[in-house]
Amino acid sequence: MSLGGLTLKTKHLLETLKDYKANAIWITDPTNVFYFTGFHTDPHERLLAFLITESGEEILVCPQLDVEAVKNSPFEGKIIGYLDTESPYSKLPYTFNHLLIEEEHLTVKRYNALHEAFSVNQFSSIDLTIKNLRNIKSESELEILRKATDFADQCIKIGQDFLKEGITEREVVNHIEQTIKQRGVDEMSFDTMVLFGDHAAEPHGVPGDRKLKQDEYVLFDLGVVYEHYCSDITRTVAFGTPESKAQEIYNTVLEAEQAAIELIKPGITIKELDDKARGIIEQAGYGEYFPHRLGHGLGLGLHEFPDISNTNTNTLEEGMVFTIEPGIYVPGVAGVRIEDDIYVTENGCEILTHAPK
Amino acid sequence: MSLGGLTLKTKHLLETLKDYKANAIWITDPTNVFYFTGFHTDPHERLLAFLITESGEEILVCPQLDVEAVKNSPFEGKIIGYLDTESPYSKLPYTFNHLLIEEEHLTVKRYNALHEAFSVNQFSSIDLTIKNLRNIKSESELEILRKATDFADQCIKIGQDFLKEGITEREVVNHIEQTIKQRGVDEMSFDTMVLFGDHAAEPHGVPGDRKLKQDEYVLFDLGVVYEHYCSDITRTVAFGTPESKAQEIYNTVLEAEQAAIELIKPGITIKELDDKARGIIEQAGYGEYFPHRLGHGLGLGLHEFPDISNTNTNTLEEGMVFTIEPGIYVPGVAGVRIEDDIYVTENGCEILTHAPK
Repeated sequence: MSLGGLTLKTKHLLETLKDYKANAIWITDPTNVFYFTGFHTDPHERLLAFLITESGEEILVCPQLDVEAVKNSPFEGKIIGYLDTESPYSKLPYTFNHLLIEEEHLTVKRYNALHEAFSVNQFSSIDLTIKNLRNIKSESELEILRKATDFADQCIKIGQDFLKEGITEREVVNHIEQTIKQRGVDEMSFDTMVLFGDHAAEPHGVPGDRKLKQDEYVLFDLGVVYEHYCSDITRTVAFGTPESKAQEIYNTVLEAEQAAIELIKPGITIKELDDKARGIIEQAGYGEYFPHRLGHGLGLGLHEFPDISNTNTNTLEEGMVFTIEPGIYVPGVAGVRIEDDIYVTENGCEILTHAPK
Repeated sequence: MSLGGLTLKTKHLLETLKDYKANAIWITDPTNVFYFTGFHTDPHERLLAFLITESGEEILVCPQLDVEAVKNSPFEGKIIGYLDTESPYSKLPYTFNHLLIEEEHLTVKRYNALHEAFSVNQFSSIDLTIKNLRNIKSESELEILRKATDFADQCIKIGQDFLKEGITEREVVNHIEQTIKQRGVDEMSFDTMVLFGDHAAEPHGVPGDRKLKQDEYVLFDLGVVYEHYCSDITRTVAFGTPESKAQEIYNTVLEAEQAAIELIKPGITIKELDDKARGIIEQAGYGEYFPHRLGHGLGLGLHEFPDISNTNTNTLEEGMVFTIEPGIYVPGVAGVRIEDDIYVTENGCEILTHAPK
């Protein structure tokens, strides 16, 4: 959407700039650069920056070798390319008394460089404005997320159908990734996790050569990147009939997850969701084995706003997308986590992930 | 190697601390944390920190759910876990007048948090010390890199053997990644790049549905992660007989690459390498089509110290590992890049990548 040369998103940035009486905004997180400009690249250690000045001028600063790609992107502002042998700042003859930056992304070194290059006297954070914008998904973003979560569902089925006694965790991981890539996925949203039995009690365990035994749980945690948007699903699936203690853990997690999801609608505080799930797990006697928050926002980032934890007293709003993923990890017994991706609707929610649980 | 409880690497850090008359060092780049502690994780947005105090105390601060994994790692210092509902800083009752930080990694937000948590009056950068340490590879690191580069060579062969008229770039990418993962590789070091014909003239192009035609070049740029170390190779391979202009470009790049490699030995300046390759390309009339530096260091990071460019007047030292990768990109004609991974030996160099060129 273009409004007098500026996109709606950029207009929101300019409003914040005016509120702060600042002179410019400097954005260098590549994901945020994509969100505002439509140009996506991984600049590695090189500088990629989107600069918006108080007069509404939009400038994309990029390595010279990306200039052609920027020209072919939706970005319509000014492009400034620089060679590896040049300082990008030397190509920007500006002074900004007050500059808005991404305090959660910008490094101390680049902060010092900006201070010097633009003679900045005051820095303020633009992080919250960007988070709030990215927090509410548009219809077109939701469409992309539905495709990303559909691929995640497919991955669970692919993995589950491949299970057999003696197979290793790594073999299952590779089979899932190979198969889904044949279906058009270019990238997983993080390293696919497949953990067997009590190995899953290490919540960030690494899949290895452990072999699957009869009657244990298999934990899948995975997601894909589709058109730059991430999905993230966890299923814990019985291979045979796990021991009753493990089943009790599974049922507790499932109950906690479903109870939290049932609460979701605009106006509810996020804390209530975490409290609900945590309360059920605590009442079952497993409170100490649930050492993480209930979930996290999802979008261009795998972990983004909102934070779904009991320290977040913000209320849910229509358009938010996040995970609900309680887990119980009892060393030597079992590790169970169940995770869905949720979109907040006008009156409740849409569960974007559909794999059976 | 353990020296009185401290590793040799940590002793180097403490020497820098004494030089600066600082009180502690705070390391949060997950790769650096692994380098010094042997514990590897991706903490996402959570805090993972390795703290070394002037008295030589070593503390690893990590999410509670990683504590078990740290106990199973080579790290022998103190472990402090924190829950998502806790501030990690509240568990560290220290004040540090002068703190050494990674200015190139630490965000402004965390910098502000450290300032407050530890009542810091002065910050200095530990970046250069760490870069210099990581810059010189040990025999055991070299062994790992040799395996990583061997897998990269295999990938080139896998991709080349799979080429046929009408195949798409994406199909070749997927075949390479699937096949190498069946051979035990868990992760590529970056998104595998396979570009056909003039599409390769976009040096950071994205593989897509372009179909391979007879008599064009295919550019492969890829690498694997092996035991956390990265390889990185580029080959540009003729499919049939490309037009003579494209062949001339290929021969120029090859000549430039080989001439630079022949110069490599301890004592030579890095600038001389870039000048040599760039001079050959300029003399052939393609100077404006070589818009990037000659190469970059390689190790735990894909792009690390040293910077192989004509602005770097440092000299080569035994133990350095880096890429040499000149390229010429003529829009509408061809894009050619040839890249090898090089280890500097006592008297010259060892080329770690062996795929034919």
